[in-house]
Amino acid sequence: MEGSVQHEERKWDTRRQRKQLKIDQARQYTDGVVIPTQDIIKVLETLITPGDRVVLEGNNQKQADFLSRSLAQTNPNVLNNLHMIMPSVGRSEHLDLFEKGIAKKLDFSFAGTQSLRISQLLEDGLLEVGAIHTYIELYSRLLVDLIPNVVLSAGFKADRHGNIYTGPSTEDTPALIEPAAFSDGIVIVQVNELVDDVTDLPRVDIPASWVDFVVVADKPFYIEPLFTRDPKHITSMHVLMAMMAIRGIYERHNVQSLNHGIGFNTAAIELILPTYGESLGLKGKICRNWTLNPHPTLIPAIESGWVESVHCFGTELGMEKYVAARPDIFFTGRDGSLRSNRMMCQLAGQYAVDLFIGATLQVDGQGHSSTVTKGRLAGFGGAPNMGHDPRGRRHATPAWLDMRLSGATETDTYLARGKKLVVQMVETFQEGGKPTFVETLDAVDVAKKANMPLAPIMIYGDDVTHLLTEEGIAYLYKAGSLQEREEMIAAVAGVTEIGLKQDPKTTERLRRDGLVVFPEDLGIRRTDATRELLAAKNISDLVAWSDGLYQPPAKFRSW
Amino acid sequence: MEGSVQHEERKWDTRRQRKQLKIDQARQYTDGVVIPTQDIIKVLETLITPGDRVVLEGNNQKQADFLSRSLAQTNPNVLNNLHMIMPSVGRSEHLDLFEKGIAKKLDFSFAGTQSLRISQLLEDGLLEVGAIHTYIELYSRLLVDLIPNVVLSAGFKADRHGNIYTGPSTEDTPALIEPAAFSDGIVIVQVNELVDDVTDLPRVDIPASWVDFVVVADKPFYIEPLFTRDPKHITSMHVLMAMMAIRGIYERHNVQSLNHGIGFNTAAIELILPTYGESLGLKGKICRNWTLNPHPTLIPAIESGWVESVHCFGTELGMEKYVAARPDIFFTGRDGSLRSNRMMCQLAGQYAVDLFIGATLQVDGQGHSSTVTKGRLAGFGGAPNMGHDPRGRRHATPAWLDMRLSGATETDTYLARGKKLVVQMVETFQEGGKPTFVETLDAVDVAKKANMPLAPIMIYGDDVTHLLTEEGIAYLYKAGSLQEREEMIAAVAGVTEIGLKQDPKTTERLRRDGLVVFPEDLGIRRTDATRELLAAKNISDLVAWSDGLYQPPAKFRSW
Repeated sequence: MEGSVQHEERKWDTRRQRKQLKIDQARQYTDGVVIPTQDIIKVLETLITPGDRVVLEGNNQKQADFLSRSLAQTNPNVLNNLHMIMPSVGRSEHLDLFEKGIAKKLDFSFAGTQSLRISQLLEDGLLEVGAIHTYIELYSRLLVDLIPNVVLSAGFKADRHGNIYTGPSTEDTPALIEPAAFSDGIVIVQVNELVDDVTDLPRVDIPASWVDFVVVADKPFYIEPLFTRDPKHITSMHVLMAMMAIRGIYERHNVQSLNHGIGFNTAAIELILPTYGESLGLKGKICRNWTLNPHPTLIPAIESGWVESVHCFGTELGMEKYVAARPDIFFTGRDGSLRSNRMMCQLAGQYAVDLFIGATLQVDGQGHSSTVTKGRLAGFGGAPNMGHDPRGRRHATPAWLDMRLSGATETDTYLARGKKLVVQMVETFQEGGKPTFVETLDAVDVAKKANMPLAPIMIYGDDVTHLLTEEGIAYLYKAGSLQEREEMIAAVAGVTEIGLKQDPKTTERLRRDGLVVFPEDLGIRRTDATRELLAAKNISDLVAWSDGLYQPPAKFRSW
Repeated sequence: MEGSVQHEERKWDTRRQRKQLKIDQARQYTDGVVIPTQDIIKVLETLITPGDRVVLEGNNQKQADFLSRSLAQTNPNVLNNLHMIMPSVGRSEHLDLFEKGIAKKLDFSFAGTQSLRISQLLEDGLLEVGAIHTYIELYSRLLVDLIPNVVLSAGFKADRHGNIYTGPSTEDTPALIEPAAFSDGIVIVQVNELVDDVTDLPRVDIPASWVDFVVVADKPFYIEPLFTRDPKHITSMHVLMAMMAIRGIYERHNVQSLNHGIGFNTAAIELILPTYGESLGLKGKICRNWTLNPHPTLIPAIESGWVESVHCFGTELGMEKYVAARPDIFFTGRDGSLRSNRMMCQLAGQYAVDLFIGATLQVDGQGHSSTVTKGRLAGFGGAPNMGHDPRGRRHATPAWLDMRLSGATETDTYLARGKKLVVQMVETFQEGGKPTFVETLDAVDVAKKANMPLAPIMIYGDDVTHLLTEEGIAYLYKAGSLQEREEMIAAVAGVTEIGLKQDPKTTERLRRDGLVVFPEDLGIRRTDATRELLAAKNISDLVAWSDGLYQPPAKFRSW
């Protein structure tokens, strides 16, 4: 009965035993769950083991930077070969970990400013990429095949039991902590301030039963105002495109709920709702429910009564007081401040809204798009989660149903589903005169060089329902074939090579058939598209709209 | 400046004011956050307003049944026209609400046993359906356009501050409570037991800052053992199909992570992993990470070392002790018991696993399937979330990449994405001799009769990658055209009308081309497929495998 002996010998709580041992060892330095600030490095060296899977909260905006800086200062002879899992790789010490040999493998979602250095470290053999994910699939894998050993997270305040108040920057914290807290992983949270008791916390975002240690950071966690767009940079071309979006997409398809990407194009839409949108009599009829960070450029639309609700991925620096003063619109806690939640907002943006609209850097002839450019492994963030048709959706809304092409028979029509509206809004040329429309995306080359199995495509062509440029709108969801799709794209590609190859007669036919519209087809005069339509022309105007509640970060204060 | 006057007059905290007023009114009956059990009806009449959106936790398994029974006893003159939002409509009082006029509108995901009565109430004009959703989109809409006024939820224990211990049945609770707690909605949780202080709770699943009132129920909340399948009902045909699944799908595509639906077919797979799977040398090579409720039929595979991890949507009655004794495998809290989470597990099952496999009641010639049959509005539950290709996914696994068809050019291949494996596993005839394969799904008729805009399809044909019957496997992801897909489906449709219409020569060609395989093509002899391969042949065997830790509910104890 050898099998039966083996069966009896199997231990089923190895993770729990290991965790208990480590916590016992760390207790010599800690005061209960509180790690003294100056002891963080040796405590990290005690709690983490070489080869561990370590989740580090580098979010889109909020950074557990005291913990990342401290981890980078640990001794590589003690801590090495860590497998880092990070939503966002945004700080230089994130990559110092690899240069020093503390970490070896990286699973991530978004890199931004560090993308060039990731490519370099990869080439030098100092870093190995597990995979590049969207946010939501990265969180998901923490529950499946990337179960973490340690999570390093950040909040505003903690009490001495480990209850955490995240403040408005809840962001990824719940999604990152739960997988570790319930798999005998170790959860360490840096906070700006320690209080004695739970009654001293404004509210509890993460209960103490999920948290093993807290540590007061040397300085408040870093947070980046990533979603602030100064209206002064919005051009009349942006206004023209915004007018087309409202007239040719939002109004036409009856778009009730939506997500906007970041960019001056979508900021322009937000800013002309109270002017142009109002003149069309659309208030209360479109754009009511939003999944969106608290964009300052949304303030005029909120103040003039366009917006019923906004659920947020994260917060935005400077918007704290404004959000807290508008609880009918934003999701706020009993303490009055925002509760953001990136996992839930990504879900909402994926499954509950009519439309996603965003910009990109390159689009190919078939409509595939990517923000990856030469030499940069930038990653995906959340755009692909928003920018695809969620085929697991089953409820209908007017906009969703409007994407349905009628079937050959009545039964076919009952079997045809609607689609999420996925709009790419791009100028035909980027700043510096680079064409947006290209034969082959740079992403293909990046994939080949980095030995990736497939190109890092942000949004696939067959998921795009509308392509909007300063030339016009291509209603791609109506394309009957790949060839027709390509013709429709070329029709709005302007004087890029892809646009110039098109026979003007083809474009004329597409316009006649309603597959492509130009501004004049929508009753929009190009000369009407001026900055005069912007409800706020600069940051100072936004402050005024907010009755002084919006407090822009210093770098946006130019008056 | 009329505009400016209006602007100043707008109130931004109407929900908060209204909530405070209601809470003040209810305080005459309550002891802090504790509602006395006998006062629940008048407190509900105080806290809820006619027309309110009320979320009622009827989950797949767990039911806030004290609250639903109490709500059904309120006075329709006081409370009426409620808009009920419920993941699962499973109890008769859920529909009594509509019969009595307390509620008017219903948004839901799954109805099961109550589906016939829903159709009847709909016909009688007593009930209006908002929409039928999958679980995940229902949760999502709570953050967008179905923001709740009141949430009625259930947990095991609460303290006098409102901290909640859900026990292993966390299920939908976090997904339902957060949207209300942070939008000035009112959160009421029924519990089986009240303790004084947070230190008396085994752990905290929902912090008190999110909860307004708790009430001790008259009896423990109802929970249904929905995922228990007694192996004694597994037939040799199920075993044959399970062998094909392992050999022709799991092994062939290198399936590491997966979700199984409920049913005897998939239970058979679970039960032959330790026998047939072992004989193929596949242990440790496939089926390692699971997103799955704690199916009792998974015990032998766990005990023999096949399973690395299981993340659960909910719990399963009788499995509590077993799960608690296997913390390396299951997600458990510091108290030792399971933390389930349907929202997170749905996400993981959607975005992080290689394969979904499930059964259905009807499949049409194009591969669309539905569990809706005549007169029943059963809803969707979570299957469509698992059973589609999540096009927002960007990370690759071997199985996912294996679904990619090579492109015409190298660039095309870099632009082609993989797919989630979505397997439909059905016998060609259902019990009672009804054919599974039909010309037109009953769902189409149901949609017409109920004035639904489209048919309630569980899984769409173009999302199905594999169709597995007792005849063989159709590798539908390889279909080059709709016609070829139809031929492949017919090839495994047996002696149903759809199968009989097929020219046997076509089937032969499909087998030659590797688009369809029969058992013999996989080296499986039909005579080898016997119940002898089941690692457990009945519930008692499962108990033995678990060393007595699995404690089946009475109705499954037949020895």
